[in-house]
Amino acid sequence: MQLYPKEITKKIDDIMNETFLKACRGEKTNYTPIWMMRQAGRYLPEYQKVRGNVTFLELCKSPELCVEVTLQPIDLLNMDAAILFSDILILMEAMGATLEFHEGVGPVFPKTFRDEESVDRLRVPDPDDTTPFVMETIRLLRKELKVPLIGFAGAPFTCATYLIEGGSSKVFWETKKMMFTSPELFHKLMDKITESTILYLQAQARAGAQALQIFDSWAGILAPCDFSVFALPYVQKIIKSLQQFDIPIIYFANNGATLLDLSVTSGADVIGLDWRINIGDAVKRVGKKAVQGNIDPFALLLPKDALRERIGRLLDDAKDAHGHIFNLGHGIHQFTPPEQARIAVDAVHELSGR
Amino acid sequence: MQLYPKEITKKIDDIMNETFLKACRGEKTNYTPIWMMRQAGRYLPEYQKVRGNVTFLELCKSPELCVEVTLQPIDLLNMDAAILFSDILILMEAMGATLEFHEGVGPVFPKTFRDEESVDRLRVPDPDDTTPFVMETIRLLRKELKVPLIGFAGAPFTCATYLIEGGSSKVFWETKKMMFTSPELFHKLMDKITESTILYLQAQARAGAQALQIFDSWAGILAPCDFSVFALPYVQKIIKSLQQFDIPIIYFANNGATLLDLSVTSGADVIGLDWRINIGDAVKRVGKKAVQGNIDPFALLLPKDALRERIGRLLDDAKDAHGHIFNLGHGIHQFTPPEQARIAVDAVHELSGR
Repeated sequence: MQLYPKEITKKIDDIMNETFLKACRGEKTNYTPIWMMRQAGRYLPEYQKVRGNVTFLELCKSPELCVEVTLQPIDLLNMDAAILFSDILILMEAMGATLEFHEGVGPVFPKTFRDEESVDRLRVPDPDDTTPFVMETIRLLRKELKVPLIGFAGAPFTCATYLIEGGSSKVFWETKKMMFTSPELFHKLMDKITESTILYLQAQARAGAQALQIFDSWAGILAPCDFSVFALPYVQKIIKSLQQFDIPIIYFANNGATLLDLSVTSGADVIGLDWRINIGDAVKRVGKKAVQGNIDPFALLLPKDALRERIGRLLDDAKDAHGHIFNLGHGIHQFTPPEQARIAVDAVHELSGR
Repeated sequence: MQLYPKEITKKIDDIMNETFLKACRGEKTNYTPIWMMRQAGRYLPEYQKVRGNVTFLELCKSPELCVEVTLQPIDLLNMDAAILFSDILILMEAMGATLEFHEGVGPVFPKTFRDEESVDRLRVPDPDDTTPFVMETIRLLRKELKVPLIGFAGAPFTCATYLIEGGSSKVFWETKKMMFTSPELFHKLMDKITESTILYLQAQARAGAQALQIFDSWAGILAPCDFSVFALPYVQKIIKSLQQFDIPIIYFANNGATLLDLSVTSGADVIGLDWRINIGDAVKRVGKKAVQGNIDPFALLLPKDALRERIGRLLDDAKDAHGHIFNLGHGIHQFTPPEQARIAVDAVHELSGR
């Protein structure tokens, strides 16, 4: 919907583009804002160049480099929001877990957290002491950016799975074994991660993050009855602790279509959606909340006309949303041609009225 | 619901237990029947013993051994249905694909099917010529069994992912790349698998299978709009071709909660459910169809009382179903203690009125 003539909108946007924040709050916007999960990442040759000289963890801990890669998709692809370059497991390392990234495997915790003793060893860290590079990156970015900056953390359940499994997993046997046979120990671990996440996200907000996203990448492995006991209460607690900052909170439960009714009770302002659900169906279920999503990241491979048509349909399906931030239903894949991402950004902008 | 006194029910069941088939048809039953996906499998020491002497593929091709392992969970755990011991990819091998099973990896197709030439090389095989061991297993089992025998095949989309990816996959990049950039080739591959599956399942029905399940293990990676174009029409075609046999057809789209409204149009009599959805919510959406499912397979690890309580709740949630076959929401995990599976079977029987 067009509130002002295009020339004026464009001039305002050139100074400070707040379209993303408005959409989060369910306010009217001149067009649908878009950003992409993992938009600063391996699909960009410019990112690969920076990454070529440092390890992934070194990159995460170098504010200047983090600023550089965070800005790349904004400049190159015209995204309407920036997301802090970091990793959800940085906080787990700050809690005392040994974190490694193995090429072709992903994150690895060589020492797992499956018993009382190992859980007791984890600390609730002061984020300014243990992750000052994150706060510094946020402060530096705010000086550079003309679009809002999103900070983030992993949801406690998702972080717990990595600590318990020792990395990623196909079936999460150890996580569920702990849930079902040692629920008290599981809750103890969740409590500790939750306390740490609260301090971490509060520090990000104080450093200048203008929105915060909580990534629950593995929530979708839970039956709704288990999600409501083992995962959701911790997300609710975190979001409550962030209300004082009055910035939008986005909760993204990956593969969470059957958890939507519960996710709505998280307290988040925006509900992230993966690509598995028709966004119109999701809008009906989330009620007066903004939604973020949800094209299949691999649909970016479609020929230009088909991609634009699919984006047009998605925008139309989402038309009754109380705020829609266009995004992929998951992180952009490393083999995606950047020019296809640009086609998508332009299509969202043009077809939604920019 | 109790139709006859328990003593009589028990006597009827001792001769031929048709509870499963009745539930599939939405008829009243004296108790809720139960079987478990992968019930003949690695969690059973008795299975491991048989498997110790042969490779997985040799086992699949030895009717006597297949009969032995198919019967194990019926005898040991008191299941209400048997499922043919085989693998969905046996048919792909019969179509001309080279199939290997690598320890710790799973199925591997060393030669992938990603171009016209490779797809053209696949044949539509005569099942009695290429997979006689499957039909022989069915004929032998029917002589032994006092519970109904389920035959099965993979859904074309799921089978196609294995051929295209060369095995299992985390993100199915190659599959979607073909879908989105070479849809005609993708449909050609699907047509060929579909024709083969029709002949294969018809042969199973003729050999004596009393129900047929179509496993769509990877349907859940598709957005609903893509599922309805690239997967569902082929399932519909298969099910239509099986109507002449007048036996129940079960369609199980794993991770398919958002596909339920579409799955109902598959023509299947029974809709399989994974554990991610509350079964009561699913029942409301499938209408006058039987449902099969859907406890989290890992919930079998719960202490006895908690497991029985969860089963009781699930039975209660499913009470308005037009037929309910209790099952896991996915295959039983190899590390599950068999005695826990037995607790579940007994709980389902007792709590539903046997």
